[in-house]
Amino acid sequence: MAVELKNLTKRSENYSQWYNELVVKADLAEQSAVRGCMVIKPYGYAIWEKMQRQLDDMFKETGHVNAYFPLLIPKSFLSREAEHVEGFAKECAVVTHYRLKADPNGGVVVDPAAKLEEELIIRPTSETIIWNTYKNWINSYRDLPILCNQWANVFRWEMRTRLFLRTAEFLWQEGHTAHATSEEAEAEAVKMLNVYADFAEKYMAMPVIKGVKSANERFAGALNTYTIEAMMQDGKALQSGTSHFLGQNFAKAFDVQFVNKDNQLEYVWATSWGVSTRLMGALIMTHSDDNGLVLPPHLAPIQVVIVPIYRSAEMLAQIDAKVAGIVERLKALGISVKYDNADNKRPGFKFADYELKGVPVRLVIGGRDLENNTVEVMRRDTLEKETRTCDGIEEYVKALLEEIQNNIYQKAQDYRNRRITTADSYDEFKEKIEQGGFILAHWDGTTETELRIKEDTKATIRCIPFESYVPGDKEPGKCMVTGKPSPYRVIFARSY
Amino acid sequence: MAVELKNLTKRSENYSQWYNELVVKADLAEQSAVRGCMVIKPYGYAIWEKMQRQLDDMFKETGHVNAYFPLLIPKSFLSREAEHVEGFAKECAVVTHYRLKADPNGGVVVDPAAKLEEELIIRPTSETIIWNTYKNWINSYRDLPILCNQWANVFRWEMRTRLFLRTAEFLWQEGHTAHATSEEAEAEAVKMLNVYADFAEKYMAMPVIKGVKSANERFAGALNTYTIEAMMQDGKALQSGTSHFLGQNFAKAFDVQFVNKDNQLEYVWATSWGVSTRLMGALIMTHSDDNGLVLPPHLAPIQVVIVPIYRSAEMLAQIDAKVAGIVERLKALGISVKYDNADNKRPGFKFADYELKGVPVRLVIGGRDLENNTVEVMRRDTLEKETRTCDGIEEYVKALLEEIQNNIYQKAQDYRNRRITTADSYDEFKEKIEQGGFILAHWDGTTETELRIKEDTKATIRCIPFESYVPGDKEPGKCMVTGKPSPYRVIFARSY
Repeated sequence: MAVELKNLTKRSENYSQWYNELVVKADLAEQSAVRGCMVIKPYGYAIWEKMQRQLDDMFKETGHVNAYFPLLIPKSFLSREAEHVEGFAKECAVVTHYRLKADPNGGVVVDPAAKLEEELIIRPTSETIIWNTYKNWINSYRDLPILCNQWANVFRWEMRTRLFLRTAEFLWQEGHTAHATSEEAEAEAVKMLNVYADFAEKYMAMPVIKGVKSANERFAGALNTYTIEAMMQDGKALQSGTSHFLGQNFAKAFDVQFVNKDNQLEYVWATSWGVSTRLMGALIMTHSDDNGLVLPPHLAPIQVVIVPIYRSAEMLAQIDAKVAGIVERLKALGISVKYDNADNKRPGFKFADYELKGVPVRLVIGGRDLENNTVEVMRRDTLEKETRTCDGIEEYVKALLEEIQNNIYQKAQDYRNRRITTADSYDEFKEKIEQGGFILAHWDGTTETELRIKEDTKATIRCIPFESYVPGDKEPGKCMVTGKPSPYRVIFARSY
Repeated sequence: MAVELKNLTKRSENYSQWYNELVVKADLAEQSAVRGCMVIKPYGYAIWEKMQRQLDDMFKETGHVNAYFPLLIPKSFLSREAEHVEGFAKECAVVTHYRLKADPNGGVVVDPAAKLEEELIIRPTSETIIWNTYKNWINSYRDLPILCNQWANVFRWEMRTRLFLRTAEFLWQEGHTAHATSEEAEAEAVKMLNVYADFAEKYMAMPVIKGVKSANERFAGALNTYTIEAMMQDGKALQSGTSHFLGQNFAKAFDVQFVNKDNQLEYVWATSWGVSTRLMGALIMTHSDDNGLVLPPHLAPIQVVIVPIYRSAEMLAQIDAKVAGIVERLKALGISVKYDNADNKRPGFKFADYELKGVPVRLVIGGRDLENNTVEVMRRDTLEKETRTCDGIEEYVKALLEEIQNNIYQKAQDYRNRRITTADSYDEFKEKIEQGGFILAHWDGTTETELRIKEDTKATIRCIPFESYVPGDKEPGKCMVTGKPSPYRVIFARSY
């Protein structure tokens, strides 16, 4: 399948179309025959696997274990927690029958005799089935904490879907923890938010703003939702991970009590936290350019590609021999490298393809390089080329990968920081929000005002940030809409 | 939660009950609120993760990549391949609606307005949705082979379920490959069977018989199904992995053609192959004993547990200091070790618990050991104890783990080989099948005879083995039932 780079829309022309095309052309994912469900293609899945592996290691380092809970949830479970059902029971996939039978007219039809007594829902999230399970695991404070995570697929019947960003089925992890005290649960929720932020910054090279959601934007059933918010290259926000302090809501809904140290029965305290394949969308939109993907070296399935340029089989054999040593030494340094000496594609095609796929470093060796013991090094982030001696090239590449990792983080952070502004009047806000970016503004703390702003401008409160981003943003002021007092500025943006 | 070992039924009393109790008591899995669906608990999941990681490495070493395809399959897809629909369209979970709404009487009800035009089936296996996708990936022989694997959950509405062995939802991997020639596809199917056999023998320490299924036992839609068959401690067979040569059946059903090297359109050749959480059942039933699990060191989440015995906080502090060095050196050797100095459980309880959980090696250090620089070493497979010097204990333990791995394989193989017998008459067969084990017998090759034997004796043909297991089993003879000619003996057994 030919790579038709000339057909990749420019970001400046149509950002949304650029994204959609890039996901497909870079072989990351595609639409399936089932509405809203995607196929994650091998190259896209390889990136997701690297994310998974790293996150999983970080979860285990913080004392978590993996488990697996059922895909299907009895319908009645969803109604147990009043707010949860509001948030999740609407658009979901409902299993009503358990058998098909032959259709006299050909094919198969649902067997009406095989109707379930109670319908089952494909999990949109697993709090209910998990807390129903935890009930049997917890008797005493000695059984706490429970620190479980699950890697799973979930399903929400979204009407408007976009590959990775919003799909009916998506892959994610969901942590569900149970604690003896409110303080411990709150600390866990914050700890996992920090894990997500570390992962985003150190692996995805994506700067994020940590904060807490407004009541209106909370997870259905949570007392507090913490979030990491990233800025995409069109200035829109992408919520990249959330961690919820659930209080005792699910413990009460599923009657999960424990005997505390004072020998008294108490409801258990809970958290849940998750990131999903949506992170793939965030990764793509944070770094990529009009030539294609730009992948951070820490998550690139192929970190270095080596392409030979040759005029004869003999010359190729010489290059093969030379490259074999380089490949071996790069691998010994823990670098994933691909030597592409396939003869069915021209070098120019290969260059464009690996650029499109975001391989961080490309090495090219031709006849003159053989004579001079040199290699051409191209870095994907800046597209800069240089010719270097092969001596010590492996250590140079290793350092270059780290430099690229740091550079794209810095670039993304500079971009974001330039686009964090303030607005002091609603008019100013309305004008600025059209330019995209994050706006720090005063808000009176009411859902009413929040909804009005959303109605007027499509902007939502992304979070009340933990840290300060512009001078004075933690000082009190007056709501830009109502003039009522506001304790600090909050971040508004349009979002994915 | 207390470990009540005295309540573990003995294998000799009731093998089936022993298994069911062991799975639950060793914290591997439990029934969920959804009929036929299990919860895989953290300890059970940790073993599954080790299996996954190893299998995944082996798949990648043989050139495969991972991808992800949708959970839901349009109903009409199942009917495209005539045999496939017979095998899989019967008992499956059918999604008919995409929304719930508030019930005036409380709770939620299915919204009748949200009925799907075409019902969706939760994948019982993914050949149909994957071949529908491959159609767009394949144009020319240059696009082949495609060597994809998927780790996923699947759903088959089983009426009689048992934890790990047969559950409605289970976790598995399914490889789906596409090839330009019949020969290449056949070779792939056999290659993956060999990967499964290697995994079973080297990691699970479980001897398996490789062979091909009779037509009646083939996967629905396959031209050939290859299998690995293991013998459980009750003499029953457990099919542990299958690999299918699918010919061009799915390519024809989904119209997947390619331009071959001769510039002619041709249908693509296919394989599929899978192993599932059923392997957990196989692992448990192959090695475990009346004291609990016996885990092969290569898959044990905890390979070594160290338990202190102390009479004072001071003595514990001394043991802690001593053990810290041992733990560090064991970890440096790549051994996963847990030091359990928790003070809320007595040593006797810990011993029973780690035995129940199948930890391969236990080290115990008490006051006298401190004085003598010794440690008590217990190996789980034989329950033998010895006291050894701490000097060089780490290397000793490393070698011991390999010895245990080999020993339990050998023990399982000896057990199995003793229970492979022959039968030359149907009467002899009927008598012997009551004792369990594998019986090599002549069969006339017809499904009719096969079904009669199953009806009479509950025994099925497990496979036509590749290798010889008793002298003369590859020589021709006469069917034990009909007297018709038979080219070689095949393996019969009752099975899970």
